[in-house]
Amino acid sequence: MSSTKFKKDKEIIADYETQVKEIRNQLVEQFKCLEQHSESRIQLLQDLQEFFRRKAEIEMEYSRSLEKLAERFSSKIRSSREHQQFKKDQHLLSSVNCWYLLLNQTRRESRDHATLGDIYTNNVIVRLTQISEDVIRLFKKSKEIGIQMHEELVKVTNELYTVMKTYHMYHTESISAESKLKDAEKQEEKQFSKSGDLNVNLLRHEDRQPRRSSVRKIEKMKEKRQAKYSENKLKCTKARNDYLLNLAATNAVVAKYYIHDVSDMIDCCDLGYHASLARTFRTYLSAEYNLETSRHEGLDIIENAVDNLDSRSDKHKIMDMHNQ
Amino acid sequence: MSSTKFKKDKEIIADYETQVKEIRNQLVEQFKCLEQHSESRIQLLQDLQEFFRRKAEIEMEYSRSLEKLAERFSSKIRSSREHQQFKKDQHLLSSVNCWYLLLNQTRRESRDHATLGDIYTNNVIVRLTQISEDVIRLFKKSKEIGIQMHEELVKVTNELYTVMKTYHMYHTESISAESKLKDAEKQEEKQFSKSGDLNVNLLRHEDRQPRRSSVRKIEKMKEKRQAKYSENKLKCTKARNDYLLNLAATNAVVAKYYIHDVSDMIDCCDLGYHASLARTFRTYLSAEYNLETSRHEGLDIIENAVDNLDSRSDKHKIMDMHNQ
Repeated sequence: MSSTKFKKDKEIIADYETQVKEIRNQLVEQFKCLEQHSESRIQLLQDLQEFFRRKAEIEMEYSRSLEKLAERFSSKIRSSREHQQFKKDQHLLSSVNCWYLLLNQTRRESRDHATLGDIYTNNVIVRLTQISEDVIRLFKKSKEIGIQMHEELVKVTNELYTVMKTYHMYHTESISAESKLKDAEKQEEKQFSKSGDLNVNLLRHEDRQPRRSSVRKIEKMKEKRQAKYSENKLKCTKARNDYLLNLAATNAVVAKYYIHDVSDMIDCCDLGYHASLARTFRTYLSAEYNLETSRHEGLDIIENAVDNLDSRSDKHKIMDMHNQ
Repeated sequence: MSSTKFKKDKEIIADYETQVKEIRNQLVEQFKCLEQHSESRIQLLQDLQEFFRRKAEIEMEYSRSLEKLAERFSSKIRSSREHQQFKKDQHLLSSVNCWYLLLNQTRRESRDHATLGDIYTNNVIVRLTQISEDVIRLFKKSKEIGIQMHEELVKVTNELYTVMKTYHMYHTESISAESKLKDAEKQEEKQFSKSGDLNVNLLRHEDRQPRRSSVRKIEKMKEKRQAKYSENKLKCTKARNDYLLNLAATNAVVAKYYIHDVSDMIDCCDLGYHASLARTFRTYLSAEYNLETSRHEGLDIIENAVDNLDSRSDKHKIMDMHNQ
């Protein structure tokens, strides 16, 4: 039975070692996840930066094309106006007015898309770069804190391991002391049964002296073993209490780690990330909404001019113009 | 006095000819103006067509660039998704969601600007071409009508000229007949005063016979001249009435031409021009407003996603993802 008990102890230690190993693997895995998570964030931020960089280029290209288009016709109008000085504003035909406003709108769109590209480059991308830097910085900081937490975890599990081994050692010793004590008790019992025979065979006196010293010897050994056993038992109980306290503490640390610390570590990595990202997106949205408002204003001006397309007034302007 | 009167008549005819010439110049000038006006319209329509043709190209270019941009990142996402099958929709992080919606918006903008370019090419430009054709057609028709009106004007002024010349001729003849009659009357008077002398100098009888025949001769001449004068006077009065009626009719035609016909001719040229142009501009505006609405919808979707950026939910998704 002592042998099976010993085997069981070995199994417990092996189990424990497996568990500790698993926890360590999990810690490594968690770091990997956190790293992966930060990397995917940085990747996302890089993609966003690259996206806005390219979109800014597209907006600038679009803006330049629109500007060129408007300028091509505006310069034509300017040069024809020099020849036809009589085409003053009061003689501006409503149809020609629509055309001029269309060119104005084109210039406005050109300006607005250039502004958009500018905001992408000088605001959105700058913010994204800052967020990237923050993510890297916070990941490093979180990793440092994580490493400290891991070390703490390793320390308490190592301590627990030591305490557990001590407990097992004392437990084993206590068991062996107990079995030795039991041996001594058995020997004493045997001696006592021999002493009973002694009273019956009182005639054989020459035998009595050596038998009494042997009893004393056994008695002494038993006492010694009793003392040893008590001592071991005490040590074992102390070690067991130590172990139980340590186990509770370690479990608390492990639980705290899994329930709070991992979460806190992610929180630390996340610090300000969503808020900064939201601010950046809002900058983008605000720029887009501004472009939309400006565009809409321009279209409304054209719509108003189209509503005021008036053949009667244009005819009078033409007749006035030729009567001058 | 007859000579100055004749001179005055000549002046009147010269004045008249100057006026008719001026009217003809004005007619030519008016045609030139109408032609110039139609030409400037066609020029405007050509400019608009050219503008929309080029703007359609710019929109298509912009659309292609945006599509390429979105596709570049979308294909990257697709290929990374194949590796990471675990990133299912329920695990889509709110930050990544914003990024996907940004790409959706880019694709939407690409689509909308392509639609815009398409509407320019297949609707706006087609309408402008039709308006150009209408302007040319209506100008030709107006010119035809104008030429008819001019011919009518030339006809009535020519008629007036003839009638006026006739009147002036009869007037001149009437005046000369009148002066001849007056001569005859003077001669008769002279003869009568000689007849008075005759009664006084009754003795010279041999003279009486030739004197009586001379009186008869003068009498006869006077009667003839009286008849001629009356006839001419009548003719002149008739011609004058004719002239006055013709003058009134011509003035009415000229007035009608300047007050109504020129205006009608411009109206004929204008027929439907402003309405068609307005419809074309409204097609353009409607396309632009549609793009704006779509754009706005997309931005609102992104704004909603930005409002829903949630670090807590993202953290749980990450932890769930790694616990699987």
